[in-house]
Amino acid sequence: MSENFFLNLRDRLREFAIDRDWEKFHSPKNLVMALASEVGELIEHFQWLTEEESKSLPETKLSEVEQELADIFIYLVRLCDKLGINLTEATFRKIKINSEKYPINRVRSSAKKYTEY
Amino acid sequence: MSENFFLNLRDRLREFAIDRDWEKFHSPKNLVMALASEVGELIEHFQWLTEEESKSLPETKLSEVEQELADIFIYLVRLCDKLGINLTEATFRKIKINSEKYPINRVRSSAKKYTEY
Amino acid sequence: MSENFFLNLRDRLREFAIDRDWEKFHSPKNLVMALASEVGELIEHFQWLTEEESKSLPETKLSEVEQELADIFIYLVRLCDKLGINLTEATFRKIKINSEKYPINRVRSSAKKYTEY
Amino acid sequence: MSENFFLNLRDRLREFAIDRDWEKFHSPKNLVMALASEVGELIEHFQWLTEEESKSLPETKLSEVEQELADIFIYLVRLCDKLGINLTEATFRKIKINSEKYPINRVRSSAKKYTEY
Repeated sequence: MSENFFLNLRDRLREFAIDRDWEKFHSPKNLVMALASEVGELIEHFQWLTEEESKSLPETKLSEVEQELADIFIYLVRLCDKLGINLTEATFRKIKINSEKYPINRVRSSAKKYTEY
Repeated sequence: MSENFFLNLRDRLREFAIDRDWEKFHSPKNLVMALASEVGELIEHFQWLTEEESKSLPETKLSEVEQELADIFIYLVRLCDKLGINLTEATFRKIKINSEKYPINRVRSSAKKYTEY
Repeated sequence: MSENFFLNLRDRLREFAIDRDWEKFHSPKNLVMALASEVGELIEHFQWLTEEESKSLPETKLSEVEQELADIFIYLVRLCDKLGINLTEATFRKIKINSEKYPINRVRSSAKKYTEY
Repeated sequence: MSENFFLNLRDRLREFAIDRDWEKFHSPKNLVMALASEVGELIEHFQWLTEEESKSLPETKLSEVEQELADIFIYLVRLCDKLGINLTEATFRKIKINSEKYPINRVRSSAKKYTEY
């Protein structure tokens, strides 16, 4: 199931690093930096676009953005592997925390801006 | 399968945003920024650690890092939804591209540093 | 002149770190991460704003943003100190490079988007 | 003095944007993103280096890093201009705040790690 997918992906990425003798570079600290530099490349694609433009990217740009998102995901999975974190479980746990932090009624009825929560 | 997991997660996040009337904030441009600010929080946990220290985080810190990683994943999935990108497929496609970009033999036999590839 | 200002600021930041015994944390690698996490905090202030809203921040927010910008500048100056870089000179050199990379006539007469340069 | 340097730089960057008809792209929100993507490029230079290696960069790399730092500074100055912030004053104000937040005696005598302040 989902577990299988993540385990499968995790294993392919492990193998990828081992095959290239890159394990020595993959400390969590370094992987955090690698993730961040991929996010920098993602930002570059969006920085001069209006919000409207960002909703309908031209095909070439969309394909480049897709590759950046994949790289971010790859480093995310690698990082979870190195830290012993189960990303699936962590995510559903975090959604629950967020639900309690932003209860529907309070959020909807409030005049406060999203940014002030 | 994995698809089910992603579709399920995507749908919960959609619902989460709709319930709170947050859809209007979730342009791809804004989601990219939200992703980036979560990555900033992740970095903060690691900035003064040595690489060695980053490999064995104390439990409290690990639990905070886990939440940051979950938030990053949540925005990543939300962004893919808004852009119509299939993250699973994109990731396996990207691994293939990376394999060709960094062939095992060339990488291993080379004295060049990783950083110069 | 400007040099005096930068030297003065550089020296105060040096002293600040030495007084607190923080020199050992301030490797360029770590300072890059610290700079990046401050930028994450800056992004957080802007992520849900429209471009228009970002042009006229409410006073409290503006004062918080001002502090983030100062922190970014502080780490930038610290980093230049550690790397032996003269930021003033580097900046004027870079403006010259940018001028040649984006010549006025070509940029203005082109129908291409900024993002494609 | 320092003011002259900043005003001079601010004016050159204004002119640079006006000459290229780029003012319309330079909302604070967009400039924050541009700053962040430059920081991403900076991170890329450091992600696989050890802290020790980051202290003595090879000349070519140092010169690339210098350009990234200049770009970050350029966007920082541009952003301050657009937001009406005086970076010099903001910085000295922030150093004062930081001094009070991390008093020398408490910091030095404490066994707590830097990361926990």
